[in-house]
Amino acid sequence: MPGAMDVAATDRAESGAASLTDAEAALLDAYWRAANYLSVGQIYLLDNPLLREPLAAEHIKPRLLGHWGTTPGLNLIYAHLNRVIKARDLDMMYVIGPGHGGPGIVANAYLEGTYSEVYPTISGDEAGMRRLFRQFSFPGGIPSHVAPETPGSIHEGGELGYALAHAYGAAFDNPELVVAAVVGDGEAETGPLAASWHSNKFLDPARDGAVLPILHLNGYKIAQATLLARIPEAELDALMRGYGYAPLHVTADLDDDPAEVHRRFAAVLDQALDEIARIQRAARASAAAGEDVDRPAWPMIIMRTPKGWTGPRAVDGKPVEGTWRAHQVPLTEVRTHPDRIAALAAWLASYRPHELFDATGRLRPELAALAPAGRSRMSASPHANGGELLRELALPDFRDYAVDVRAPGTTETSATTVLGALLRDVIRGNPSNFRLVGPDETASNRLGAVFEVTDRVWEGSLLPTDEHLARAGRVMEVLSEHLCQGWLEGYLLTGRHGLFSCYEAFIHIVDSMVNQHAKWLKTTREIPWRRPIASLNYLLTSHVWRQDHNGFSHQDPGFIDHVVNKKAEVVRVYLPPDTNTLLSVADHCLRSRDYINVIVAGKQPALNYLTMDQAIAHCTRGLGIWDFASNDHDDASPGADGLPDVVLACAGDVPTLETLAAVDLLRQHLPRLRIRVVNVVDLMALQSESEHPHGISDARFDALFTADRPVIFAYHGYPWLIHRLTYRRANHHNIHVRGYIEEGTTTTPFDMVMMNGLDRFHLVADVIDRVPSLGARAAHVRQLMMDERLRVRAYTREHGEDPPEISDWVWPY
Amino acid sequence: MPGAMDVAATDRAESGAASLTDAEAALLDAYWRAANYLSVGQIYLLDNPLLREPLAAEHIKPRLLGHWGTTPGLNLIYAHLNRVIKARDLDMMYVIGPGHGGPGIVANAYLEGTYSEVYPTISGDEAGMRRLFRQFSFPGGIPSHVAPETPGSIHEGGELGYALAHAYGAAFDNPELVVAAVVGDGEAETGPLAASWHSNKFLDPARDGAVLPILHLNGYKIAQATLLARIPEAELDALMRGYGYAPLHVTADLDDDPAEVHRRFAAVLDQALDEIARIQRAARASAAAGEDVDRPAWPMIIMRTPKGWTGPRAVDGKPVEGTWRAHQVPLTEVRTHPDRIAALAAWLASYRPHELFDATGRLRPELAALAPAGRSRMSASPHANGGELLRELALPDFRDYAVDVRAPGTTETSATTVLGALLRDVIRGNPSNFRLVGPDETASNRLGAVFEVTDRVWEGSLLPTDEHLARAGRVMEVLSEHLCQGWLEGYLLTGRHGLFSCYEAFIHIVDSMVNQHAKWLKTTREIPWRRPIASLNYLLTSHVWRQDHNGFSHQDPGFIDHVVNKKAEVVRVYLPPDTNTLLSVADHCLRSRDYINVIVAGKQPALNYLTMDQAIAHCTRGLGIWDFASNDHDDASPGADGLPDVVLACAGDVPTLETLAAVDLLRQHLPRLRIRVVNVVDLMALQSESEHPHGISDARFDALFTADRPVIFAYHGYPWLIHRLTYRRANHHNIHVRGYIEEGTTTTPFDMVMMNGLDRFHLVADVIDRVPSLGARAAHVRQLMMDERLRVRAYTREHGEDPPEISDWVWPY
Repeated sequence: MPGAMDVAATDRAESGAASLTDAEAALLDAYWRAANYLSVGQIYLLDNPLLREPLAAEHIKPRLLGHWGTTPGLNLIYAHLNRVIKARDLDMMYVIGPGHGGPGIVANAYLEGTYSEVYPTISGDEAGMRRLFRQFSFPGGIPSHVAPETPGSIHEGGELGYALAHAYGAAFDNPELVVAAVVGDGEAETGPLAASWHSNKFLDPARDGAVLPILHLNGYKIAQATLLARIPEAELDALMRGYGYAPLHVTADLDDDPAEVHRRFAAVLDQALDEIARIQRAARASAAAGEDVDRPAWPMIIMRTPKGWTGPRAVDGKPVEGTWRAHQVPLTEVRTHPDRIAALAAWLASYRPHELFDATGRLRPELAALAPAGRSRMSASPHANGGELLRELALPDFRDYAVDVRAPGTTETSATTVLGALLRDVIRGNPSNFRLVGPDETASNRLGAVFEVTDRVWEGSLLPTDEHLARAGRVMEVLSEHLCQGWLEGYLLTGRHGLFSCYEAFIHIVDSMVNQHAKWLKTTREIPWRRPIASLNYLLTSHVWRQDHNGFSHQDPGFIDHVVNKKAEVVRVYLPPDTNTLLSVADHCLRSRDYINVIVAGKQPALNYLTMDQAIAHCTRGLGIWDFASNDHDDASPGADGLPDVVLACAGDVPTLETLAAVDLLRQHLPRLRIRVVNVVDLMALQSESEHPHGISDARFDALFTADRPVIFAYHGYPWLIHRLTYRRANHHNIHVRGYIEEGTTTTPFDMVMMNGLDRFHLVADVIDRVPSLGARAAHVRQLMMDERLRVRAYTREHGEDPPEISDWVWPY
Repeated sequence: MPGAMDVAATDRAESGAASLTDAEAALLDAYWRAANYLSVGQIYLLDNPLLREPLAAEHIKPRLLGHWGTTPGLNLIYAHLNRVIKARDLDMMYVIGPGHGGPGIVANAYLEGTYSEVYPTISGDEAGMRRLFRQFSFPGGIPSHVAPETPGSIHEGGELGYALAHAYGAAFDNPELVVAAVVGDGEAETGPLAASWHSNKFLDPARDGAVLPILHLNGYKIAQATLLARIPEAELDALMRGYGYAPLHVTADLDDDPAEVHRRFAAVLDQALDEIARIQRAARASAAAGEDVDRPAWPMIIMRTPKGWTGPRAVDGKPVEGTWRAHQVPLTEVRTHPDRIAALAAWLASYRPHELFDATGRLRPELAALAPAGRSRMSASPHANGGELLRELALPDFRDYAVDVRAPGTTETSATTVLGALLRDVIRGNPSNFRLVGPDETASNRLGAVFEVTDRVWEGSLLPTDEHLARAGRVMEVLSEHLCQGWLEGYLLTGRHGLFSCYEAFIHIVDSMVNQHAKWLKTTREIPWRRPIASLNYLLTSHVWRQDHNGFSHQDPGFIDHVVNKKAEVVRVYLPPDTNTLLSVADHCLRSRDYINVIVAGKQPALNYLTMDQAIAHCTRGLGIWDFASNDHDDASPGADGLPDVVLACAGDVPTLETLAAVDLLRQHLPRLRIRVVNVVDLMALQSESEHPHGISDARFDALFTADRPVIFAYHGYPWLIHRLTYRRANHHNIHVRGYIEEGTTTTPFDMVMMNGLDRFHLVADVIDRVPSLGARAAHVRQLMMDERLRVRAYTREHGEDPPEISDWVWPY
């Protein structure tokens, strides 16, 4: 704010001023002007990019789209980062919170030459500049925001909140990298960003890189003041110190001499980078000596500049520069207002483009020389195109972890416990490019075997009673799904691997982040220069059916529905029914690229059905008939058509259990009924081939589910998803789905399935209701089932637990 | 932390110590012990509630479920709040972040008598205590968490993050209310909570109540240290000062004398409440004098107590009290371990129950006298059962805002602009029980008329250039959807009204919060003593089809899919096609109770179709045939069966426009085709009656959509939702849906619909593809349509805007 005292900055600025000569300041300013000119040009110009002729209506875009307000500040930072990259030979990335500042980042990628390298038609001359301007926010062109199309970016930033978490994710295990992360004061109001400042408690100065947060306060959002710009400077300073940073302040007022601002900012930036270097040197020396260091107070910069700085001071008598009115397009309806054409021309001319570009439209060499070269350019950083750096995971053979299955459905293991052993060895084999994230649930989700070889990262204080807490580790736990997701995204986008283990219900907390990552992946798949990255892998456990102890708030299987709305080529959903299938699925997901893989698997001891060989075959197909549980081929009597009377389908561990228990009841009570059991691991296989790459053909679907027999489908989640996936199938009208119908509380596991009608007794009744001509005996059996429900419920309410014949049921054949 | 200096607390404690006599401290301690005893009893005991006989296995629950760790701290605070409520005659509410501390809150409601009042079988004697213990976390009983079933609670707290936002929501416009809000150190790590501290910038000390945040640090989550418990005390203090609070510290160590802790906590609490009273007095005096005051530094308390305090110190040689091992059930498998039965007996006996309860199991009168009476009891606060306080909104007649529609589809208005006028008058008529929340988008979403009568609330600094920013106002803007949602939930749950206006894509940010609120509503509907509250109303605008300027990240209509997974009795979704229908829908939603209403409506100028009378009739039915656009009754030729050749259905403003434009094309090119147009406002009407209260009968569905004619359905969102809603209908296999298929970028509005195949040309082609025997002319028309698409796309890419015949299209008949 005008008048605020920047003590730290002022002190340092004096020494910094000495280090930046007038000539250097002038060159920096020219580079900044060039970026600003190109930014304004992108927003406004169709043609006449170098203003060779008087600006006229036909040179101006008919629809003016873009965001000017944040752009000059982003450009200022960019120019200064270039200076320190060159001066210090830094490996640096730029993460831009205000993603709508697209024109600025595109302008800088163009100034650095990267843009022309990846998009040759956008050449570094007048013709290229014309195309650069025209394509921006134009049909067939590029988006208005920083986007996958923008070289040097790892995120779009349109949905605010994740810049700092992404920056930290990029810095983990990249000890030589410095990530400059701009946080806009709009974004700073979001919850995820407010939590992200605490990421410094998880950054190991010895083994990770550095993040330099730059809180860029321009004072306004779309139409309103911003929170952090309107609290006293001392309060903001305390807030940042409270978050564990050592803030450095630098402020530019509307009437400040730009040269003076450049000196101040250069000084502050030097101070920050000196401090980062000092912290890292000290920490690495200590680490080399086998000593832990205390968490340092990392530097961060609080930079205040006017919103829409260097743009029109006022329009129609109302102040624009330095206010919210500069947020998007300061001068509107330019084509039809000659005075605004003149104002735009004056604005563009204020950057003195002839000093910046030569007659052919090329950036003058003394300015071009300011940018770093090759991969040192932030727009060409391989970290920002993580697939370039991606190394294959060294994976153990998942078959080595197989549980022995002599007979289906007779032994129990905890699937996630066994997966924990696999993950332990993934971590052992990949000590610097794989991380496991989750909200304090690694042990609760029974992945505790990983702690045999690693710890939870923790830079806060340590106590003697702590277990598996250390300065370095592969496990990142924080009670913020947003941070888990943001860190992992940043880690993956910069070319590494990971897995997010989460309670199923609470993964909805990151629904919107998943949306944005899915959109990013979908778009990058269409951009040739973007290299594939490791998939985003979720292990959703502590799932809806086994949150009987935590109650209704913890019971929600809807994340699957959420992700299947995203593009089919990006999304995979797996519901392994037992331990060996989970191992097979996990191995597949860890090897995959550019997907969002959702694995739902229980952590409680549960029956094993398939040997590892069977599991691999089953997972490879995605779904299939379980012969051991089916008796439709047993009947060799004349007249049998080889088809079952009913298909019992299941997807998910608990639905599979209930289905098999229902088959047991049916075989006891209606032994002549021909039953086929189909288990689905890969949910997307249910869709048509035309809808999803994993979808099976209609012929195969019909071969499995028949063309005309009733199908009773026991499904893990909301039942209508199965209808949405199968509505084009011939036999769809015969598919009857049981699943979670939003009923729950704190009760027993079996009461949970009863409350939702997914229990074995209900499934038997469903069969009886849908298979015609089962006769009088069936009606009797149906009544028996309903009586059983009542009996079990009464037992449960009396004893507080499920009767042993339910909880201990095994496949008896 | 042990050894931490609590300077402020210590200073004050000395004076506070004087104010709490030994006898008072002893009584407080006894009350606390009573709550702790009842908490442990709930977790463990089936029977023998007063330990009249030696504790035996059969007295203990077979499954031990519940969370002990946080409970003694919550109980301590409760006892002390009771003291100040009585001493100061306060109107106080208790919002509990750690919702898993259910046993404690239930125990306190029982001690206060409220529990027995609302659940008479849980009487205040031994038999009632037995039932109280037994029902907890027991099948057929109550949930393990604080829940709708718990008197005095407005939230469940199972999904952490929203306690403080709910507390502030409760305090807004409740000037006499003090909301004590416990934030656990787990919850404090979440993003939404990290942002919620800033709610103090929106709380008007003159006109709102007070929130007293109590950050309860017990040091651990499920298995891990917590962030805020492991940073230096000075850093935590700076963080809270940076958030704008004046923190007061109080710490209890494991070996502290409880009496001393009571004195310290009482002193700190007195200090906080003195300060709140002082702040409010000063602000209200200033407000009465017409002066603004600067934002005060509200007090907050940082309370450190051992996790699982007063529980078992160690189990099997491992420390439990004061560690993460006390999180849930410190002593497990008690029934089968005699030594643990003994340990549990000793633990229970340590509270000296005979000093607390008389021989009949009743709380001793000197302890019962410590609780406030009647509605002053926090468990009986009417604010926590907001429906009790709910006043009807004084609503203007929405018909007064109607736009004049002489002929359908010929004039344009911005629907949300007109709605803004209605909302302005809602605000005028309801100056203290209605709020409009949104992330800085009130103006952007064109609801700016509200600023004719109110302002945005803002307790930060003000500048001369600010517009509609003031210390008091009905509009709450912060760039955090979490805070908007949390505040509004708190406001509604305490008996007031409101509306959340949001960009459609970013409402996904609160998916998980909506889940929890829907679960809360679903449960409260089954609890007789919970009174209905005002519905949670969303206006989703800046929707998927008109985010052409912001690009792909801003294009997501999936929130509808998310909410329809919740219980049908709670969820309503409206897609008004024009201004008058929006007015009618909004009026209906503002009058409704206990729903989540989602309204999706555009803000851009768009065609009007219905007069107000027609709009009311249409919205009342939920869906219907638009005769003006249909020609299926025009054909009186012999052989006509009165049925159309095709039904063109639409839901949403942009799909309706494209549908009508398609009808225009069909009438031009295939004039003999009999077309019926069905518009859907109330999406839930598409479902079966059995699935949703708004669902229509099969007969009515068939009458509208026919039993056998092709239906081309143009839908606002992801197309499969329409299939999921209609899959049981007879004509389902004939329904062909166009919608958003996750394609988008920065482009023109019409290019957006073309990218997703929802455009008028595609719809015409769909009709031709599905109506048999249209002859050779149809094939020609189809080709013409495809050519038109190419022509329009070429025009758009040349000119950067849609051709005028597209953007200016009106209904020409």
